Amino acid sequence: MNKPVIPRTGVGVDAHAFATAEDRPMMLAGLHWPGERGLAGHSDADAVAHAACDALFSAAGIGDLGTHFGTSRPEFAGASGATLLAEAARLVRAAGFEIGNVAVQFVGNRPRFGPRREEANAALSAAAGAPVTVTATTSDGLGYEGGGEGITAYASALVYTA
Amino acid sequence: MNKPVIPRTGVGVDAHAFATAEDRPMMLAGLHWPGERGLAGHSDADAVAHAACDALFSAAGIGDLGTHFGTSRPEFAGASGATLLAEAARLVRAAGFEIGNVAVQFVGNRPRFGPRREEANAALSAAAGAPVTVTATTSDGLGYEGGGEGITAYASALVYTA
Amino acid sequence: MNKPVIPRTGVGVDAHAFATAEDRPMMLAGLHWPGERGLAGHSDADAVAHAACDALFSAAGIGDLGTHFGTSRPEFAGASGATLLAEAARLVRAAGFEIGNVAVQFVGNRPRFGPRREEANAALSAAAGAPVTVTATTSDGLGYEGGGEGITAYASALVYTA
Repeated sequence: MNKPVIPRTGVGVDAHAFATAEDRPMMLAGLHWPGERGLAGHSDADAVAHAACDALFSAAGIGDLGTHFGTSRPEFAGASGATLLAEAARLVRAAGFEIGNVAVQFVGNRPRFGPRREEANAALSAAAGAPVTVTATTSDGLGYEGGGEGITAYASALVYTA
Repeated sequence: MNKPVIPRTGVGVDAHAFATAEDRPMMLAGLHWPGERGLAGHSDADAVAHAACDALFSAAGIGDLGTHFGTSRPEFAGASGATLLAEAARLVRAAGFEIGNVAVQFVGNRPRFGPRREEANAALSAAAGAPVTVTATTSDGLGYEGGGEGITAYASALVYTA
Repeated sequence: MNKPVIPRTGVGVDAHAFATAEDRPMMLAGLHWPGERGLAGHSDADAVAHAACDALFSAAGIGDLGTHFGTSRPEFAGASGATLLAEAARLVRAAGFEIGNVAVQFVGNRPRFGPRREEANAALSAAAGAPVTVTATTSDGLGYEGGGEGITAYASALVYTA
């Protein structure tokens, strides 16, 4: 029997606090959310896209967000989550891997995600060139997510060599 | 060479607070835990079963708990975690996927899980029609789990098309 | 067509608080971190290695850390994270599984991980006899991780039967 193709799993977690400034745009899951308070951070603070990037890097074993998008690459300083995810996917493929899929669930009170789920999946899947699915939940009032202080995103990715 | 069968990964997270009412039954991992304080929520608040459902939906890319068991399907309003997991598995198969397995770890001070692990695995595996394994840990006193306010469950699932 | 080889996924989470004693050595991801405040716990409190163990046990469906390294096996009472991971890998193989890979991301302010990532990956991969990759992030000041109270590690593992 031929050796089976066993994919590699990767994990990614990212959290961002809501911004105190009211005019900061809310970017999440590759989309702009008008009328929602934005997330804080040097980048666009798209925790969903960032967790997806880290899960891909983790699966490929090529470092993490800090390795690739840190201060050594100032051209990504203000990049959108979708731009970072596209670049992460490119780096993973350059390292010799195909991308199976990426799944992300975020925990937070806002935004109400369901009505725009398909739009988000399409935006992030286009960026990654592979299926990315996003789901949402609340934390039943618990923790900083339940208190409305921030959002946490948990991602899982599979990559493989064909 | 034939194209390899690469499964799809999914991720699920669910948190529930312990109920203030002392007479609320504790339901977790498909089991009733007599003598334990229950978890709060509109459903039976079985965070382990809910995270397993969300991981399956996430892997299949067909939405999440809110999509399938929200207010549009009132027949699931008071359903048990095991009932929801069985329905989630049915929906995932109806979407064209086989279920590989589901793994869930919950973080919480209570209940003491080890003595009933095999019973829980059997109950949830029967519901899903696929292997479901549950593990438990504490958070070393940290966070709302360590403070005894609630429980968080983290799930990972694999599905595939054969 | 032959039945495809579908791996099994496993999930692991572990949290440890920073020790109040200043002379406790910091052990994380299989490495000693001189000059860093240590983590508290009965073992060496290596949350990264512990989460990796639990993800392997979870994937194989053979219990968790408490099952294998609890009070029934006092010989592991003071064992290092790398020693526990090597024993977890041995137990998973004894149960009939091959190990695909293990991915771990930890959330915490300290230590600064990037400069020693490859060293950590090498130490844990040697212990497991399979690829283990570790990544790091902060939580943007949120939660107990952001407050510098402790560290949480999230792990994903794949095992399979060939």
